[in-house]
Amino acid sequence: MIIVMAPGSTAEDLERVKTKIKSEGLDYHLSTGTSRTIVGVIGDKKAISELEMHCALPGVEKTVRITEKYKLVSREFKQENSVIDVGGVKIGGPEPVVMAGPCAVESMDQLMEAAQAVAEGGAQFLRGGAYKPRTSPYDFQGMAEDGLQMLRKAADKFSLKVVTEVLDQRTVEEVAEYTDVLQIGARNMQNFQLLKEVGRAGRPVLLKRGLCATIKEWLNAAEYVMSSGCDDVIFCERGIRTYETYTRNTLDLSAVVAVKELSHLPIIVDPSHGTGRRSMVSPMAKAAIAAGADGLIIEVHPHPEVALCDGDQSLTPEEFKKVMAEIKRMSAILREE
Amino acid sequence: MIIVMAPGSTAEDLERVKTKIKSEGLDYHLSTGTSRTIVGVIGDKKAISELEMHCALPGVEKTVRITEKYKLVSREFKQENSVIDVGGVKIGGPEPVVMAGPCAVESMDQLMEAAQAVAEGGAQFLRGGAYKPRTSPYDFQGMAEDGLQMLRKAADKFSLKVVTEVLDQRTVEEVAEYTDVLQIGARNMQNFQLLKEVGRAGRPVLLKRGLCATIKEWLNAAEYVMSSGCDDVIFCERGIRTYETYTRNTLDLSAVVAVKELSHLPIIVDPSHGTGRRSMVSPMAKAAIAAGADGLIIEVHPHPEVALCDGDQSLTPEEFKKVMAEIKRMSAILREE
Amino acid sequence: MIIVMAPGSTAEDLERVKTKIKSEGLDYHLSTGTSRTIVGVIGDKKAISELEMHCALPGVEKTVRITEKYKLVSREFKQENSVIDVGGVKIGGPEPVVMAGPCAVESMDQLMEAAQAVAEGGAQFLRGGAYKPRTSPYDFQGMAEDGLQMLRKAADKFSLKVVTEVLDQRTVEEVAEYTDVLQIGARNMQNFQLLKEVGRAGRPVLLKRGLCATIKEWLNAAEYVMSSGCDDVIFCERGIRTYETYTRNTLDLSAVVAVKELSHLPIIVDPSHGTGRRSMVSPMAKAAIAAGADGLIIEVHPHPEVALCDGDQSLTPEEFKKVMAEIKRMSAILREE
Amino acid sequence: MIIVMAPGSTAEDLERVKTKIKSEGLDYHLSTGTSRTIVGVIGDKKAISELEMHCALPGVEKTVRITEKYKLVSREFKQENSVIDVGGVKIGGPEPVVMAGPCAVESMDQLMEAAQAVAEGGAQFLRGGAYKPRTSPYDFQGMAEDGLQMLRKAADKFSLKVVTEVLDQRTVEEVAEYTDVLQIGARNMQNFQLLKEVGRAGRPVLLKRGLCATIKEWLNAAEYVMSSGCDDVIFCERGIRTYETYTRNTLDLSAVVAVKELSHLPIIVDPSHGTGRRSMVSPMAKAAIAAGADGLIIEVHPHPEVALCDGDQSLTPEEFKKVMAEIKRMSAILREE
Repeated sequence: MIIVMAPGSTAEDLERVKTKIKSEGLDYHLSTGTSRTIVGVIGDKKAISELEMHCALPGVEKTVRITEKYKLVSREFKQENSVIDVGGVKIGGPEPVVMAGPCAVESMDQLMEAAQAVAEGGAQFLRGGAYKPRTSPYDFQGMAEDGLQMLRKAADKFSLKVVTEVLDQRTVEEVAEYTDVLQIGARNMQNFQLLKEVGRAGRPVLLKRGLCATIKEWLNAAEYVMSSGCDDVIFCERGIRTYETYTRNTLDLSAVVAVKELSHLPIIVDPSHGTGRRSMVSPMAKAAIAAGADGLIIEVHPHPEVALCDGDQSLTPEEFKKVMAEIKRMSAILREE
Repeated sequence: MIIVMAPGSTAEDLERVKTKIKSEGLDYHLSTGTSRTIVGVIGDKKAISELEMHCALPGVEKTVRITEKYKLVSREFKQENSVIDVGGVKIGGPEPVVMAGPCAVESMDQLMEAAQAVAEGGAQFLRGGAYKPRTSPYDFQGMAEDGLQMLRKAADKFSLKVVTEVLDQRTVEEVAEYTDVLQIGARNMQNFQLLKEVGRAGRPVLLKRGLCATIKEWLNAAEYVMSSGCDDVIFCERGIRTYETYTRNTLDLSAVVAVKELSHLPIIVDPSHGTGRRSMVSPMAKAAIAAGADGLIIEVHPHPEVALCDGDQSLTPEEFKKVMAEIKRMSAILREE
Repeated sequence: MIIVMAPGSTAEDLERVKTKIKSEGLDYHLSTGTSRTIVGVIGDKKAISELEMHCALPGVEKTVRITEKYKLVSREFKQENSVIDVGGVKIGGPEPVVMAGPCAVESMDQLMEAAQAVAEGGAQFLRGGAYKPRTSPYDFQGMAEDGLQMLRKAADKFSLKVVTEVLDQRTVEEVAEYTDVLQIGARNMQNFQLLKEVGRAGRPVLLKRGLCATIKEWLNAAEYVMSSGCDDVIFCERGIRTYETYTRNTLDLSAVVAVKELSHLPIIVDPSHGTGRRSMVSPMAKAAIAAGADGLIIEVHPHPEVALCDGDQSLTPEEFKKVMAEIKRMSAILREE
Repeated sequence: MIIVMAPGSTAEDLERVKTKIKSEGLDYHLSTGTSRTIVGVIGDKKAISELEMHCALPGVEKTVRITEKYKLVSREFKQENSVIDVGGVKIGGPEPVVMAGPCAVESMDQLMEAAQAVAEGGAQFLRGGAYKPRTSPYDFQGMAEDGLQMLRKAADKFSLKVVTEVLDQRTVEEVAEYTDVLQIGARNMQNFQLLKEVGRAGRPVLLKRGLCATIKEWLNAAEYVMSSGCDDVIFCERGIRTYETYTRNTLDLSAVVAVKELSHLPIIVDPSHGTGRRSMVSPMAKAAIAAGADGLIIEVHPHPEVALCDGDQSLTPEEFKKVMAEIKRMSAILREE
């Protein structure tokens, strides 16, 4: 059960609720957001039922029964869709939001060229990795803080927001300084310490699905972020690992529908990692929007043939502009329905 | 290598080609279509290269080098898209084709109601199983020939074509009598004897992807059908088996793009089996069209709550009409691109 | 529920039972074995409970409640392990049974050499494919009836039994003439027509697990064979398809334990297809026996480097003898426990 | 290429090698072990070939060409098996090493009872989680430092070594104080920051395979640990995620053989998480040893029915003793071969 404290409730009200919970032999989990405080009650089901009947305490707005382990994340907890506002860009609203840019930050020139291209194409966000999780320790690991500075500079020049990955608990604060949205990569989806730290960093979080995570595990990972204090989680489907080898991953677009059914949070799709093949990015981007995704994250590189990573799956600026135009027309049609 | 005989070539021309092949120590595979004869040359690569240089024989239209094991199926063999004409309904052309109806034929009443609904919704085909492949021998196995007769009757009444599954080598001829398109189900995708027999039955074949078939295995399965004499194969993506349990299968829409890259044959999508959940059928149907699918096969039941099989994934007639209208508008937009 | 008729029961007894079942609005499935007749009752659970209470009819030995869809196959139906006697070779008893030989029958010489080697190594069965299920129609499809004759001849010369695959409903009888055990390959595990036909062929059946079949689907496939009249089904774990590409398949030895828990039937393991790598065959063969398998099926080729198929995973005669000696000593130890 | 510095080489020798590498336009990676220094050369293949021909510098013992991305880990780099000595217990030697204990540390009493049982059964290590990675933030997260103290105390009392998981970069030092071997759990196999930190902690590392990690990704993860300075990595196969739901994971014993082929490092198996079912732990433990594993990690709980986590897969002390006796006899037989 979750107890939602009323907006104007006092510290005493909260104290009274906590005492009541403890007196029933139960425990609680506190989530203090900017506008409201939520008390998640944990423990024996019977005791929770008892408590529910006697919970008409001052300062309590409502109590909500949640049947799944994930609570703050669930559609049961919040009926209406969450719209996440990132400095005026609204994720989860009627317009799809597009994040685009190179896999890795390589140089100021590359980034400026990329930023211009994605801005002209109509993207709202510049993406790019300054810290790269690589299978081998001998592969390019990213430009670190230099890369973050370049990202910010290029984005600002073209009025774009920044989304970039954070890999390391110790650099969460540093990365948060430069970025508008903190990205958790697929390999870290169940790095629970990192989830808790980004949850406390005061930035919206883009949570990629793990390589073989179930939908429910993914929702539980988001619950780690939300229960650490961050209300603004955006899911990102990026393909799952299957036996098929023709594509790099198998992009699971039904996950878009599933997340929308089970959660109030927005979800975007990454057709670049989801397929690993340039020729598939555009058709799968359109399919994602048709399935109901709130946006896309797409790899765009001014010169894919010389990219330090993921060149095979990066669109050229021209290809990007073309698919953006198609998506715009398609999503206008879909909105009318 | 494949040797394509010219339309007006004679039996003697063909004989000369065969003799030449044998004289080089190679073997051949003959594919005699309605309009052309194709000689697939099999054997040692060097000998094939030799042969190619000396193959300017009378009656030979062209020779084609094919790098994959599947040949007739491949885009290398035929550059332009194949459009399959089923009594005037064109699969693979600009308009998406929709096959709809109940999972299993249950009664004449059920089928008439279903046929009317899908015809009114704009489907061109009535689907329905008369022979059902069931995991357990104690589950409903279908109405057999009675079911076939009902299907034909209901389809004819509403000017629909029929597509239905054939399970058994011994009933291929019987089923072919009643149906316009012969369906090979996922469990039989590598039942090679059945593939050969349906290839000889004189009907277009709808070839569902196996539960854990790779794209390449699927193309090779189609090669079995084509090399047995049938030019009209339609692929059907229906979801693959993964670790995810929220959906019945994981619908792999990137397979649509892959098949279009590798083959000239059309491909449709089955969002009903692909997801196993009614709420997901419409969004995934739209996503399939956006990804470039040539059509859909959708389970529609007049009363899903009493269906003998797959009720959970069947649309009601109203839901079907709604998604058909959406698809129509969306595909008009996509065609303009 | 299953009704087991007593050994001396009459046709009238059976008739009375059938009438009783029908009068309760239920249906039945008849399994007439050599020594007993079993009536599987199918239908509404409440009606079955009713029937159970009033089923003390003449000729009825016992009634058994089965909670799973597979009934004859289940451990609930038969507590003790089934031991299948193939002309004196006992599968499911204390000694592991080994089937060995080449992937495909290639020539009389090859087979004679292979048969001698596997007999000397201590195998009880000669394996070898006369009909081969191949991904591509242009791959070697087997020597057909000639191959069957060679198999029988080579096996007889070295006092071995024969196990070989049947692919085609139309050749079940032909294959059954030459072989002691009929093998159903992985690709045909859910070819239900073929399962029914081999169930009626009067030979024990070796049922390989499908490439992505669950344990329960596999047990249900065996139920198709048993409910068609064959009591002697042997399971064969041969690896499942996963994302891992280092091995051809992922050999699932926990399936050995699972099958032993859920069924009374014996199970053997195929480490050759299960790994696809010669170097892995011996360690995985030993692991299979340690996990409790009743035997092994191993590819052995006198000259793996020139094998027409699966040379990479075939043991040489020397390697085979070595692993056989190890297994013998290991299984003696395991039996003492 | 890897350049191995001779045991008595000087700092000047090393400096000369570095300068040489840089002068060829290449980069290097330094691995300074207790007894030797290794210089991994990274960069363009042609330049590396050049360098190799001119690398007869003072202090260089040998140069080794490595074809895979993982180098220090590979069998190419080191031919003989590595034996890891943990205070006298040798992992990778002729005797299998067994780590056993509860999933989570729950109390001093529970742990003392468990430690006594596993010591009596013949285990050399006490296992137990003080920090638990849990899917939901509301599940029991472990007793933290209190748990570590209890582990150490209980292990010392029964002369056992300790292995326990570290989840958090910030607690690596703390955990290293109490434990003999640092465990990296499956969910953190590609948490590269954590891998680097445990690599610098001065303790042997037990590296569990990720839920859907390929063998090669796993070897690369070990390369992160080794290239950070730790020579003593032990692999642990704990089951991979597949479509099968009867078992918690699919235990991939062929991975034991694969790791032994590709690497010189030892590998143990976790049949508890690998199957998730108590009844399967003993047979799969024996199978692991038969496949060539260097040891086992097994969940044992004095009272599985009240365990806070993983009770369903924990052996009782009696079951543990029984399987240990069987393994002892079996491994004696296997060693003779």
